[in-house]
Amino acid sequence: MIVGIDVGGTNARALLVDSATGGVLGRRRSSSAGDGQALVRGIVGMVDELRVEGTVDAVGLGIAGLTDRTGTLFYSPNLPNLLGFSIGSELEGVVGVPVTVVNDATAATWAEALLGAGRGSDHFGLVTLGTGIGTGFVLDGRLLEGAHGFAGEAGHTVVDAHGPTHITGQQGPWEYFASGSALGRMGREAAGTGRFDRALELAGSADDVTGHHVAAALAEGDADAASVFDGFCREVARGVANLVLILDLGRIVIGGGLADIGESLRAGIDGHLGDRLPGAEYRPAVEVRLAELGDDAGALGAALLAAAGRADPAGDERSPHVPRFAPG
Amino acid sequence: MIVGIDVGGTNARALLVDSATGGVLGRRRSSSAGDGQALVRGIVGMVDELRVEGTVDAVGLGIAGLTDRTGTLFYSPNLPNLLGFSIGSELEGVVGVPVTVVNDATAATWAEALLGAGRGSDHFGLVTLGTGIGTGFVLDGRLLEGAHGFAGEAGHTVVDAHGPTHITGQQGPWEYFASGSALGRMGREAAGTGRFDRALELAGSADDVTGHHVAAALAEGDADAASVFDGFCREVARGVANLVLILDLGRIVIGGGLADIGESLRAGIDGHLGDRLPGAEYRPAVEVRLAELGDDAGALGAALLAAAGRADPAGDERSPHVPRFAPG
Repeated sequence: MIVGIDVGGTNARALLVDSATGGVLGRRRSSSAGDGQALVRGIVGMVDELRVEGTVDAVGLGIAGLTDRTGTLFYSPNLPNLLGFSIGSELEGVVGVPVTVVNDATAATWAEALLGAGRGSDHFGLVTLGTGIGTGFVLDGRLLEGAHGFAGEAGHTVVDAHGPTHITGQQGPWEYFASGSALGRMGREAAGTGRFDRALELAGSADDVTGHHVAAALAEGDADAASVFDGFCREVARGVANLVLILDLGRIVIGGGLADIGESLRAGIDGHLGDRLPGAEYRPAVEVRLAELGDDAGALGAALLAAAGRADPAGDERSPHVPRFAPG
Repeated sequence: MIVGIDVGGTNARALLVDSATGGVLGRRRSSSAGDGQALVRGIVGMVDELRVEGTVDAVGLGIAGLTDRTGTLFYSPNLPNLLGFSIGSELEGVVGVPVTVVNDATAATWAEALLGAGRGSDHFGLVTLGTGIGTGFVLDGRLLEGAHGFAGEAGHTVVDAHGPTHITGQQGPWEYFASGSALGRMGREAAGTGRFDRALELAGSADDVTGHHVAAALAEGDADAASVFDGFCREVARGVANLVLILDLGRIVIGGGLADIGESLRAGIDGHLGDRLPGAEYRPAVEVRLAELGDDAGALGAALLAAAGRADPAGDERSPHVPRFAPG
């Protein structure tokens, strides 16, 4: 069995995973606040508890940021205390089994590929819409990791070169327009200019409107919410179209917290995608699907990647390949 | 031996290629104007002439547009007479050897991977700067073709959502700002507003300034040309940065007609690239190199892809892989 761990900005989630089936046999959660040593202690505690339920052969760690293949964290706005910390080797030294470290969105992509909404596609992208945008890709049946394991930072790609400045310092990155944060901002703007009265009722004031209020009003069938949400879906589709043009993806899987909105989100993105692709009338349509693994995807994918590493000890340093490691 | 053919908007170029070494043993050229049957006749004429110099085992065809894997052209602004024409099967019926059809930029990428500036990198992108922008990618040592063979249309990705409308109908695609056509437009704008007197002298009038005049003035050391050119390199770097963020490329190879400008172009793009990458201080630098195969790249790559197809008759429909087919 493998323990998969997803380290986010506030919490770390651990799953005990049957590597042959991808089944989840146990769960734990701990804080990810504090420094690297505190995080290692929290993770070791979870691994030790899960070990009671079965032999742990390896640990897979998905982490929100850029890590190199040795498991050192290079860049992570969400985990500033861990920069330069070699989480992989530190953890390996304590738990005594191999530790594989990958980006969290890359790990989630792998889980959706093997067990979720990516099944049956050799060319898909996962787009997670949450506080920011995370992306990961399976191309030609293989997980894309890139030259240094940093692939999938599409949220930072510039789509509006003269647009507003994002927290990253860039002007007009996709994430500014199409993340959950953007949906909240769009709701506040509409509420503040008299175009979204229901949000004012739900939130109390325009300044307090969040993406959750937009989603709630949308679920009620509010027309203003539908208008705001349509504009949001257009911005998501803009970035998705760029990915399709570069990579010729056959499928897009939408995950992250906003995927809870469900079919309205899927259909909204789908509806705007065709307009954005030159030559769309000559292209087979790109499938748009909702992710299937929810919050488990990152930890599950990290576990499955750790299992894949173990299954290929010869290690030609190429990325895992769907047919070779697909469980079941 | 293999015949590789590059079909552009006005001409088709054929090379007789030794598939074991990639060596070019003969060359022909014909018009690509007219309809599909005229193009087939022109190509068959070239193949028949090259057959005098040795046995031709297969033909590889690189073509400017979207073709599916059966060799039918779906979308091509430069070859409107060929839309819907099954160039692959039509040609195969006449020449009597297997014909492989691929996008021209994809073919050129493969040639640079095996014989040119991509050698030694498993993660690189080719960016050809000509009338438009073409791109192709080797990821994890494999040529990216995508779900339908349409990968590499990065010139059409939107980088300035509220920017000017391009000939494709899109607002603000990368190609509008960073192709050879864009360099000419930047030169005309500068000349027309008194910021580029040398271009006025070279071209006669602001309206007649082209990218060639900008390049000529740059080569003379003209300061105004350097300023225009720096702005152009910044626009190239903007799109390259997006590609690096998505794909984690270790190297960028710059080809196309503008690559003749040489080191000024390479250094200009290189200089602007770091500014465009969030977390650049934590990332290994991306190498920027000039392409090495010039105008031969498309035909050579098409020939080598046809050879790869022949080398893998089992055909698992996955993309060619660098180590497996690298000549020599």
